[in-house]
Amino acid sequence: MEQKFNVHALVWQGQQLAVLDQRQLPEIVHYELYVTAPDVAQAIKTMQVRGAPAIGIAAAYAVALSVQQHYQPDNSVWRQQVAAEIKLLAASRPTAVNLFWALDLMQIKLTQVEGSPVEAVIQLAQDIHQQDIAANLKMGELGANILSDAQGLLTHCNAGALATGGYGTALGVIRSAYQRRARRIYAGETRPWLQGARLTVWELAEDRIPSTLIADSAAAMLMKSGQVDWVIVGADRIAANGDVANKIGTYSLAVLAKYHGVKLMVVAPTSTIDFAMQSGDDIEIEQRAANEFLPQCYAQADSLIDAWNPVFDVTPAELVSVIVTERGAVFNPIDKGVGELNNE
Amino acid sequence: MEQKFNVHALVWQGQQLAVLDQRQLPEIVHYELYVTAPDVAQAIKTMQVRGAPAIGIAAAYAVALSVQQHYQPDNSVWRQQVAAEIKLLAASRPTAVNLFWALDLMQIKLTQVEGSPVEAVIQLAQDIHQQDIAANLKMGELGANILSDAQGLLTHCNAGALATGGYGTALGVIRSAYQRRARRIYAGETRPWLQGARLTVWELAEDRIPSTLIADSAAAMLMKSGQVDWVIVGADRIAANGDVANKIGTYSLAVLAKYHGVKLMVVAPTSTIDFAMQSGDDIEIEQRAANEFLPQCYAQADSLIDAWNPVFDVTPAELVSVIVTERGAVFNPIDKGVGELNNE
Repeated sequence: MEQKFNVHALVWQGQQLAVLDQRQLPEIVHYELYVTAPDVAQAIKTMQVRGAPAIGIAAAYAVALSVQQHYQPDNSVWRQQVAAEIKLLAASRPTAVNLFWALDLMQIKLTQVEGSPVEAVIQLAQDIHQQDIAANLKMGELGANILSDAQGLLTHCNAGALATGGYGTALGVIRSAYQRRARRIYAGETRPWLQGARLTVWELAEDRIPSTLIADSAAAMLMKSGQVDWVIVGADRIAANGDVANKIGTYSLAVLAKYHGVKLMVVAPTSTIDFAMQSGDDIEIEQRAANEFLPQCYAQADSLIDAWNPVFDVTPAELVSVIVTERGAVFNPIDKGVGELNNE
Repeated sequence: MEQKFNVHALVWQGQQLAVLDQRQLPEIVHYELYVTAPDVAQAIKTMQVRGAPAIGIAAAYAVALSVQQHYQPDNSVWRQQVAAEIKLLAASRPTAVNLFWALDLMQIKLTQVEGSPVEAVIQLAQDIHQQDIAANLKMGELGANILSDAQGLLTHCNAGALATGGYGTALGVIRSAYQRRARRIYAGETRPWLQGARLTVWELAEDRIPSTLIADSAAAMLMKSGQVDWVIVGADRIAANGDVANKIGTYSLAVLAKYHGVKLMVVAPTSTIDFAMQSGDDIEIEQRAANEFLPQCYAQADSLIDAWNPVFDVTPAELVSVIVTERGAVFNPIDKGVGELNNE
């Protein structure tokens, strides 16, 4: 496959997984090497690797590492050890459905193989990884077709190569659109974790794509000025009715886009869609620690100051113009949901 | 006057002005002492003191310092020196109209006094300061009357004791409302400068008022959850038609409030109103340096990454529920503007 991007969050190195430590970007580009599943679970939990598709792929490789470490041909104790580590992986982050999707695929494979499963699970993890990249390249083209000549694109958080197997979902569309011709690309800095400032603009620059960073709260004024035609974001989970859970601030952008006549594109592989979940109201929203943005000096026990730190929000389908997946695009998901994408 | 607040941004000490260095809050509470106008202008420019009313008061004291330093009874050279320093002060920040209002008052006083003007200008600066506090206490009561039993209040930036002569505009209303009975108070952290995180929640805690900090981009989800009845903000400039320039992100909150059926209260002394300006379209919006939030590693000359950093935005009158001033409240300013508050 032609390499259309220079950034790689996850690199499988035969018997170990190299994970780009995204907490140190953009200042330091450092890969941590992992050989056990609990260490990968910790890397997910601490957001060394983040982004729904990348979390799923990392978890798949982690199961492969688990099998590689524990498999014994002469008894089945290893199955309990691997099952325990899969449980640990499932508890690492609650919102990304890709995580559970990837773990399910790996578990099914384990029940199917006769003899040593090591090669098979490594192969499956690599397949999940490559299929994600292929899906992103496909979504990139589909999304770029829909954008047509749109000039101003605003993205939020990082739904890029760093958040996926490679190329990216929202940033994949932006890459594909930019390859056709130059556009103005804006990125919200994405508080509290600053994925936009630390990851998205860095990643685009690595692929020689210029971009402009804005404070999240400046998006409304930017839209009012007429500089934005589309908001383009990824998703952590999509319900069957087309409701979209994504990084906190996405719902805000969706409301602002509606008000200003700007369109909203959600780009995500179908592994992100939870067809069994009827509505976004049922999506569990992860709350992270207040100290992610509360100044340390407020942390004393009797403090009158606390913080509310939901990591995701839910954008109702009625605010979404189009959902782009590797199986095709669904316009106005409020009409019929995304069930037509379910081919199982 | 009864002291209803514990936080003081500006303290006149006879022959010098003590300025609380707000850049060091909340970790360090440090007052810098000034005896010259250019030093105060620099303190305004570097945001050691900020907030439209506080900037106006600081500038008034600076003119007093200028007269104190340059006045000579036997010739009028000092008038040119003072005029030059007034010009310097006027150039320190472009958006806050209170700055020009205060400088005008001081200049008029200088033309009226016979003999030494030193005592008179010091007295006028102190009067401007005390009148601002009195206006804030009045607005606090007016605003609290309007809020009635509203439970959830969200503010943005810092329109508090730190931004004014004392007590605050938006935070004055919140103080008065909280004194009547407890409410849930939320503060947006207010990127890029974090006035909410560093100043507002600190200032409220100093007066024993509990508050919850949120990322700016979480405001929409908070409103959707039904936790917010009113958004309450200050203003840097209000046009005759009721359009309001305030900290970047205010317009965003105004649109989100409208969408969620949340009301928007703007609290500002009439010195903030530019009756000569017909509409908010004419308000000059200050753009500050990209490096206020662009990571240092992107600063090289050939960088593909830049930042758009407007400090204020304009909220059209149609999104404002009520403007509260010391001369009374104007509901639905979209109907007739705020001209009725002009008593000149």
